[in-house]
Amino acid sequence: MDRIDRRKRAPLGRQIYERVRKAIDTGILAPGARVASARALASELGVARGTVEAAYQRLAGEGYLLARGPAGTIVSPNLPHAPRAGRVEAPAGSAGTGRLAPIDKPAAKSATPAPMPLQLGIPALDAFPRKLWSRLAARRVRMTLPADLSYGDPCGEPALRQAIAAYLHVSRGVACDAEQVFVTAGYRASLALAAGVLLERGDSVWIEDPCYPPTRAVLEQASLIPTPIPVDDEGIAVAEGERWAPRARMAVVTPSHQAPLCVSMTVARRLALLDWASRANAWVFEDDYDGEFHYAGPTLPALKSLDADDRVIYAGSFSKALFPSLSLGYLVVPNAVAARFAKAMEAGPSRSPRLEQMTVADFLTGGHFARHLKKMRLLYSRRRAWFADALHEVFGDRVQVDQTRGGMHLVVRVRAKAGDRTLARRAQREGMNCQPLSERHAKPRRRDQALLMGFTNVATAGEARQIARRLRDAFEGD
Amino acid sequence: MDRIDRRKRAPLGRQIYERVRKAIDTGILAPGARVASARALASELGVARGTVEAAYQRLAGEGYLLARGPAGTIVSPNLPHAPRAGRVEAPAGSAGTGRLAPIDKPAAKSATPAPMPLQLGIPALDAFPRKLWSRLAARRVRMTLPADLSYGDPCGEPALRQAIAAYLHVSRGVACDAEQVFVTAGYRASLALAAGVLLERGDSVWIEDPCYPPTRAVLEQASLIPTPIPVDDEGIAVAEGERWAPRARMAVVTPSHQAPLCVSMTVARRLALLDWASRANAWVFEDDYDGEFHYAGPTLPALKSLDADDRVIYAGSFSKALFPSLSLGYLVVPNAVAARFAKAMEAGPSRSPRLEQMTVADFLTGGHFARHLKKMRLLYSRRRAWFADALHEVFGDRVQVDQTRGGMHLVVRVRAKAGDRTLARRAQREGMNCQPLSERHAKPRRRDQALLMGFTNVATAGEARQIARRLRDAFEGD
Repeated sequence: MDRIDRRKRAPLGRQIYERVRKAIDTGILAPGARVASARALASELGVARGTVEAAYQRLAGEGYLLARGPAGTIVSPNLPHAPRAGRVEAPAGSAGTGRLAPIDKPAAKSATPAPMPLQLGIPALDAFPRKLWSRLAARRVRMTLPADLSYGDPCGEPALRQAIAAYLHVSRGVACDAEQVFVTAGYRASLALAAGVLLERGDSVWIEDPCYPPTRAVLEQASLIPTPIPVDDEGIAVAEGERWAPRARMAVVTPSHQAPLCVSMTVARRLALLDWASRANAWVFEDDYDGEFHYAGPTLPALKSLDADDRVIYAGSFSKALFPSLSLGYLVVPNAVAARFAKAMEAGPSRSPRLEQMTVADFLTGGHFARHLKKMRLLYSRRRAWFADALHEVFGDRVQVDQTRGGMHLVVRVRAKAGDRTLARRAQREGMNCQPLSERHAKPRRRDQALLMGFTNVATAGEARQIARRLRDAFEGD
Repeated sequence: MDRIDRRKRAPLGRQIYERVRKAIDTGILAPGARVASARALASELGVARGTVEAAYQRLAGEGYLLARGPAGTIVSPNLPHAPRAGRVEAPAGSAGTGRLAPIDKPAAKSATPAPMPLQLGIPALDAFPRKLWSRLAARRVRMTLPADLSYGDPCGEPALRQAIAAYLHVSRGVACDAEQVFVTAGYRASLALAAGVLLERGDSVWIEDPCYPPTRAVLEQASLIPTPIPVDDEGIAVAEGERWAPRARMAVVTPSHQAPLCVSMTVARRLALLDWASRANAWVFEDDYDGEFHYAGPTLPALKSLDADDRVIYAGSFSKALFPSLSLGYLVVPNAVAARFAKAMEAGPSRSPRLEQMTVADFLTGGHFARHLKKMRLLYSRRRAWFADALHEVFGDRVQVDQTRGGMHLVVRVRAKAGDRTLARRAQREGMNCQPLSERHAKPRRRDQALLMGFTNVATAGEARQIARRLRDAFEGD
C-alpha cells in the first residue's frame, strides 16, 4: 500500500518523500534518471507544487536527488546502484557503480546483444540499408498529421495492403486485391488469425514433420490437433497425410523451402496437395517466409499462384525480407472469406503501429524492396557458398551438406559418435547457435541427425573458416 | 494460375508482359506507381534481364509504362484508373482520373479521415507534441545498430519496462519491478494475454454493466463467460457480483473512471472488491486506460496500489496518454505469476516493433511524459468545461450532464421523446459520433438512456457551441 493519501497520518510531503526515496533505494529509479518536475508531479498527485518541492529539497539535501535548474532534477549520479533482481544491469565492461546514465540523450542504447553466429532465421543484419530506412521513417514521422495519430484500419494501412498486393502480383505470381491482404504482427499472429477464423476447436491440422516449432505451439494454443506428416524430397507426403489424417481441416506447409529441411515442394506435390484440399474441403496455409531467397534457378512462384479452387491462405513476413524487429507480416486470403477475416481483425487484439506500416509501404512503392531482395539473393548465395566451402575444408568428409536450392540455413550432417543434440549443445556452449534437426522431428529416426546452421550473418570467407574451426574444436570431446 | 513457367507454351517475355499488363488493367498497379527495375525483376524471376527489358519496352510502346531513365520505370500517369472494387480510391476532391501519384515522395499520405467530432476515447490529436515526437523517433531510428534489427525481448524492451515501472511507482503508487511489466499491442492484447495465462475455458468473469464492448468480445473469444455486474455511484456492485457469480475467477474493472459512466470507484468499494478476490481466490483485472485524466481533486492512485494480496493485474495503455496509432499498452502482474506471463509472451503472437518501444522509453525517461500529461489534464479540464457549458447554453434544462471528476467523455442525458439510440443515430447522420449509453448495458433500464460524448478534440469554446447547436438541430425531428 503505497499511495498519496489525505487520510494517512503522514503529511503529504512526507509521503512523497518516501515514495521517491523508496524508488531510488530499490533501484527502480536509477542513478542519473530524470524525475518528474515538481510542477508535473504536483499536478499528477493533486497536491500543491510547494509540497513536492519541499520533498525534493529534502531528497536533494540527503544526496538522493540533484537539482540542475532548468535542466530538471535527476537521481544523483553518484549513488551506488541498488543491488536488486529487478534492475536492468549495466552492460559488462561499463564503468560499474557510479556510472552516469546518459540523460539528455536517449535513455539507453537498447543494448541488444548481437545474435549468436549461425542463429537461424535472421537476415543479414549488417547488409540492411539502415540509412535509407532511417530516411524513409524520419520523413514519414515528420509528415504525421493529427489524424494519423488516431486508430487506423484494423486490417492494415490501405497503402501497405495495396503495395503488398502489387508486389505479390508481379513478383510472386499471386493475383489478389488489397482487400484480400491483412497486415499482422508476423507469422504467429497470421497463423493464429487464420486458425481462429477458419477452424473449430479440436480440428486436426497437418503440420510438416520436421517442422518449425512455433507452428505446433500456435495450433495447440488454439485448441487444434497438429498431426505431423513426413516430409520427403518432394515436400510434405500428401499420400501419408491422407492415410493418417484424411479429415484434417488444414495443412500448414512451407513450399518454397521447407522449414527446416529447405527442400522445395515439387509441382506434382503442390498439385496433389491442392487436390486433396479441394476433395477434403480443407485449407492450405502457405508459410512463404523466405520464398524470395532462392539461389539456384528462378525464384519459385508461390503455391498460392496455383490455387484455382481458392483453398490457399498465403502468409508472408517482413521479418526475413526486411528485419525481425519490425514485427510485421501479412496474410492473403480468398475473396470468399475476406469479410470474415476483416471482422476478426476488427475484434482482435493484433494491431500494428501505423508508422511502421507506412514506412514499409514507402519502401515497397519506392522500388527499394525489389532492389534489396535482389542484393540479398546475391549476398546470401555468396555467404552460403563461403560457409559450405569452409565446412568442407575444415571437416573434410566428416560433414555432408544437404544440396538445397534456397533458404537461410544449411542442413549439415556431421559424422560423429555424439548425436546432434549433444553436438548442438557443445557448439552453443562455445557461442555458436546451431540447432539439432532431430528436435524438430516428431519421432526422429537415425538419419534425422543433423545440425541447422544459419549462414546469412557469416560476413566473409575468413569468418566462415573461423567459425568452421571453432565448430570443429567445439565438437571435440568426442 | 499466373506464374512464370518455363513449361508453358507462351514465351517467358510474353508471360511477364501479361502479368504486368494484368496488374495495370485491374488497377493493382496504379497510374504513377513505380515498377521493379528490369534488373531486379529479372533476378526475382530467374530470367535474363533482356527478357524483362523486352517486355517492359513493349508495355512502354503500348502506353502502359513510362521509362524515366535512371529515375526508374513507372505506370503511365495518363492511364485512366481502372475501376475496380479493390482499389484505394483517390480522396474526394482530388483531380480524379489522370491524377499523377507522387512518385519520389512517400507513396501517399495515409489519408486518414480525421475522427468525427465527439468520438470517444481519442486523445486531443491537435495537442500532441508531434515535433518533439518526430525528433525522438528520428534520433532513435538513426541510432539503430544492426543488432537492434533483430528480435527483441518478447516481453518488451528492457528500457521501456524499466521506464514504465518508474513512472507507475512515482505517479500511480504502483510498486513493481521491470520484470513484472509486459509490453503488449494494447488493451485487447493485454486482456487476452491475462485471460490466456490465468483462466480456463468456461470460467466466469465479472464485467461491469455497462461496459466497454471490446471487453466482452475478448473474453468471449477466449471461451470465457462474461457476467455483467451492475455499476452504481461507487463503482461495480461487489455484493451483487457475489450474489450472482460468486465463483467467478476474475473481475474486469475500470476503477479510475468507469467506462462508460466515468464514476470513480470509492475506496470502500475497492477494498470490498479486493476482499472478495482474496476470499474467492480470484483475479482483478484493472483497466486503467485513462486514470491520468482526473480534473477535480488529485489523480486517484491505482487500485493496484492497494493490492496487498497480489490479486490485481494492472493494464495501462499509451493509446490515450500518447496516441492510438502507437498500438502500445502494458500489463503489470504479480511477481508470483510473472514467469508464466513471460512464457506466454515468448510463445504468443503479440510483438511490438522495437522502434516504437524505444521512442516511448525516451519520451518517459526524458521527462516529456509527465509534462505532457500535465498539459493534457489542464487542456481536457478546459475543453470539458467549454463543452458542458455549451450544452447547457444551447439545450437549457433539456440536458443534464452527469457530474464526474475525470475521464475523456461526458455522459449527457437528453430530455426527448426519442431514445438514446435514435438520438445517436441522428447525430451520427450529421457527422457527430456520439454513442448511446443504453447499448452498453446488458439490460438497459429507462434511466440508462444517455449519450456519450468525447470532448477531448473539441478545440475551442466556439467549436463547442457550434457542435452543441448542430446536435440540437440533429436531435430535432422529435
